Formats: sequence, structure tokens, C-alpha cells
Amino acid sequence: MGALRTIGVIGGGAWGTALANAAAASGKAVALWMRDPEAAAAAELSRTNERYLPGVRLLDAIGVTSRPQTLALAETVLLVVPTQNIRSALAGFAGLLPPETPLVLCAKGIERGTNLFPSEIVRELRPEAPVAVLSGPSFAADVARGLPTAVALASGDEELARRLAADLSGPALRVYHGSDMRGVEIGGAAKNVLAIAVGIVQGRRLGESAKAALTARGFAELLRFAEAFGGRPHTLMGLSGLGDLVLTCGSAQSRNFSLGLRIGAGTPARDATGGKLAEGAFTADALVDLARSRSVEMPISEAVAAVLAGTRSVDEAVDGLMARPLKAE
Amino acid sequence: MGALRTIGVIGGGAWGTALANAAAASGKAVALWMRDPEAAAAAELSRTNERYLPGVRLLDAIGVTSRPQTLALAETVLLVVPTQNIRSALAGFAGLLPPETPLVLCAKGIERGTNLFPSEIVRELRPEAPVAVLSGPSFAADVARGLPTAVALASGDEELARRLAADLSGPALRVYHGSDMRGVEIGGAAKNVLAIAVGIVQGRRLGESAKAALTARGFAELLRFAEAFGGRPHTLMGLSGLGDLVLTCGSAQSRNFSLGLRIGAGTPARDATGGKLAEGAFTADALVDLARSRSVEMPISEAVAAVLAGTRSVDEAVDGLMARPLKAE
Repeated sequence: MGALRTIGVIGGGAWGTALANAAAASGKAVALWMRDPEAAAAAELSRTNERYLPGVRLLDAIGVTSRPQTLALAETVLLVVPTQNIRSALAGFAGLLPPETPLVLCAKGIERGTNLFPSEIVRELRPEAPVAVLSGPSFAADVARGLPTAVALASGDEELARRLAADLSGPALRVYHGSDMRGVEIGGAAKNVLAIAVGIVQGRRLGESAKAALTARGFAELLRFAEAFGGRPHTLMGLSGLGDLVLTCGSAQSRNFSLGLRIGAGTPARDATGGKLAEGAFTADALVDLARSRSVEMPISEAVAAVLAGTRSVDEAVDGLMARPLKAE
Repeated sequence: MGALRTIGVIGGGAWGTALANAAAASGKAVALWMRDPEAAAAAELSRTNERYLPGVRLLDAIGVTSRPQTLALAETVLLVVPTQNIRSALAGFAGLLPPETPLVLCAKGIERGTNLFPSEIVRELRPEAPVAVLSGPSFAADVARGLPTAVALASGDEELARRLAADLSGPALRVYHGSDMRGVEIGGAAKNVLAIAVGIVQGRRLGESAKAALTARGFAELLRFAEAFGGRPHTLMGLSGLGDLVLTCGSAQSRNFSLGLRIGAGTPARDATGGKLAEGAFTADALVDLARSRSVEMPISEAVAAVLAGTRSVDEAVDGLMARPLKAE
């Protein structure tokens, strides 16, 4: 028997912790890196991540650490930090991870300022690393409780995608592989912005019919964007596109949807985050910027960006979204 | 000024009543036909449909009747009866409606035994009548309360579709026109079957991630069916396909989803309807039959049909749906 295969996880939020547990459940040794030394030590000792995934026991095969060096021997590293933190997180591992260690990117967004998708950021910083993205309809709490969850993992290197998907799959988490990394990234980034719009409509108590109509129109928006930016329609209709859109737009467990809910109910946008990170709030501007650069019409995303920026009132935005002229679908 | 234009509505259920109110709100005279003379007389007098849409006032421009003759002068007739009743309902109007009166079909299903979509049934019975179908994400209660709702109306005759869409649109109900009648019919029929599957998974408490994954796979199933039976993908991604799927799979207000919920929670399928009509329960067999006839794979719909028929247990069905082999998406 060879040595136990080790998976490194950078990021000890709810999703990173749930993925660490899933990898451990499928028979891997896991090194889970948290930035905060005290939180890491507490989790290592107590065997729970009290702050982000309370009540869930960390499996024995997980070691929690705040020392980047511990991940140097990992066969594969999952990067589970928010998109806006990818650059700084990787800087902390510069010179420690071998250049050929595959990175699995688990963030859903677009970097502000650069308008780069996660895989593009990584290509800049670690040009030699094989890269895959993991995304799909998944609440950390569901995965942690062992409820069946299916996600997509895509890489330009299909053989890598197949291998990683098998490595990370276990009894609860099913990982489907594909080759359309850009399509997966687009679905993950755009659905968070659309979820804010759907949340706003729900917060305004406009009914479920209105929510469903907006979700369908949002999906059309997402498809147009994907077509212009090299994602395949098939990918967008799958788990990481439609599946994640449905989950995110349908549940208060989603931070982005909840942010929209609070804004729709009257909380000013700048106060509505409730201290929780909603990736969509950071991604909206970048998404709209990119769309404009290729003349893709995204009225729903535009409305979300304008409301978040305070340049459009919620009433104006909702009126604009609901009262489109009567034309062909 | 010419005479007030009259719209006839056949069927005094919740949706027929809500559509009657919507047409009246957009300035038409409406003749609402109910089968039961006592219910019609009570509604005409009390100005509410106490049984199916309680608490909603019928607008003054609506006359409720049980006499088919009253609809003879209607410019357009909406047929708002369940798919399985279309044949018998139209028989009651034989010789009364002029052959050229346009019929707008508002049922979502496939006729058992014949495997015909609503427009095909009508073409058999009234070959000369111009036909359109109206479908989309809409709860009668939302429309009745004046909440914004958007639906699709399609006809092979696009000019007719445009005119009818304008006729039926009002402040709350927005009707978008299109030409892909078959695509609209497929979306409406299939989503009810898929909603039963999603309800079962929720009834089994498998979590929101599992529900979202199943919804995405269900949508793929629906697209495959549409491709084989002449619906356009664009239509299926719109209000009447994806929009209605999202609504139906996401709310206990949906009878089909609720039926699945009860089955998933342990009620035997034969007892689970709770006395309410769930179109999907009638459509499942026909959908699966049609799919097999053109070798379309529909594992989710097959599972629903088998559970409803009592030939597969809920546990077997759920295991089959959740534990697919790990393959490319």
C-alpha cells in the first residue's frame, strides 16, 4: 500500500470545511488550512468549525492548520476562498506549493478591478498549475449532513477532471466532470447576481409567479452572456448553471438571495449584507462591465448593480424589471 | 363606439376565474361558464367563486353562466378545463361556437389513451378553429391579487398570437406572444411530471441541494423530449418551460409538487392526491409512452410514472434518481 493520498483545502469557511469532510469521507487524508491560527487550533482540538459550520464533526482524517507549509505535500489543493481573496490567499502559498500541484477553484465570482474569472487569476499567478473549477447547487450544510448533493468539476484537461471528480466523490457528494471550465465559471458568477434580483422581488412581496418569471428571464441573460464569453449552452443548462440558479434563487440559505430579500424589504443596500459575504454583490459590477464590453444585454444584472451602487432606487429597479414592453418572448 | 368585445371562458376553476378577472380588468366583457348551474348562479349573485378562488371579487364585467349558448357570441374563447376533460367540455359546445371562433387552450397536460396534446385534441374536434395555447408560471391566487405575472401565448398563426396576447394583457397579467405552440405545450405538460419527482425528494427530506440537482436534470429531460417532438429549445428556456418548471418545483401552492411531497413523506400514491387534481399524475404515463416511442431517455419521468402506478417503491425510485453513475454531465 502506498501512502495515504492527501488533499489540501485552502479556506476554512463553511464550504471549505464541508468539502474537507467530504474528501475525508471518500478516504483521503485532508489538510485544512485556516488563516486564523487560533481558529485553526480550536478546530483541530474541538473537531468542529464552530464559527462557520457549527454542529458538524470534522472527520478524523482531517488535520486543521494555519501553516501554509503543511499543504506542500498535498496531491491536489482545493482553493475555497471568496473570489476577491484568491490573489492574496495564493500569495501566502507562493514558493510552497509545487508548480505542478493541481488547483481546484471553488469560488463563484469575478474579480473586481480586473474583471477576471478565478481560473484567469490563477493562470496569472501560477501559470504552470493544472486548474479545475468546482461549482454547482450545494449548501455546505447539506453536504455536511450527508444529504445527496451533485456538483460539476471542469477542466480544460478532461483526464484531470475525470480523476479529480472521482477523488472528491463520496457517498453524499457526487462530482460530475466536464471540460467547459469557462461555462462553469460563468454560471457560478452570474447566478449570484441574479439571485439578488430574485430576492429583491420576493422581498417586495410580488409573489411566486413574478419570481419564477424573473428567474427564467435571468437564465436567458446568463445564456446570452455565456454565448458571448465562450461558455457552452449545455454547461449552463446543467448543475453549475441552471441547477445552481434554481438553488440560489429559491432559498433563504443563499446569502445572495437573502441580501436581495433584505434590500427588497426596505433595508438600504449598503446596510443589507448583515456582515455576511454575498459574492454577487462584488461580482455585479464586473459582470455588467464585461457584458457591456461585448454588447450583451443584461437588464436584470444592470438593475442589481445600480441598486447596490445606490444609483437606482429599488422601486425604479422593480418597475423596470416587471413592466417590460409586451413583445415576443 | 362599437360593442364591447366579449371573451368567453369555459371552466370556472381557480385559473379560469383568475383569467376571467384579468380579461375584465383589461376592459373586456367576459362570459364565464361553469358546468354546475348552482355554482354558476351562486357566483353570479355573490360575485365570488367561493369554492375555487375564495376571497376574490369577480369584476362587474363578468357574467357567470352555466348555459353554453351564452358563449356563442364571444369573440375569443378560453378553454380552462383539465386536459383530460377537454374532449367532454368541447362536446357540450358542439354546434354553439362558430367554427372560426379562436380557442385559447389553458390546460397543461397530455390526454391519456390518445397521447394527444391539447391543441391536437382540438384539431380533431374543431378542425377549422384557430388555436393558441396559454401557459407559463402563474398561480391563480397571484393573478387574482393583482401581483405581476408573465405568461406565454403561442399560436402557429403569429398575428393571432400577437392580437390575443394584447387582448388578454392587463396591469397584472403580462402575456408574451410566440409561434411555438408545441414547445409551450411540451413545457407545460412535462413540468408537472417533474414537479412530482422534485416533491418526492423534498418529501423525503433530502435537502435543497438534491432538489436543485434534480430540477436541472429534469430540465435536461424536458429539452430532450422537446427536441424529439418539435418544440424549440428557446421556448423551453422561456416562461412556459423553465419559468413554469421553477415555479412548480418550488412551491407547495403547486398541486403536482404537493402530490410529490405527500408521496415522499410516506402517503401511498393512490391516496396522495388529497382530492385535488394534479395534472402531472394523469400526464406521466402518456409522457413516458411518447418518449419511448422516439427513444428519448426520461429516467425521472419514468420513475414518477412507476411510483404512481405502484410498480416501484418510493425508496427504489429515489435511490435510482440520486445514485446515478459518475459520468460526464
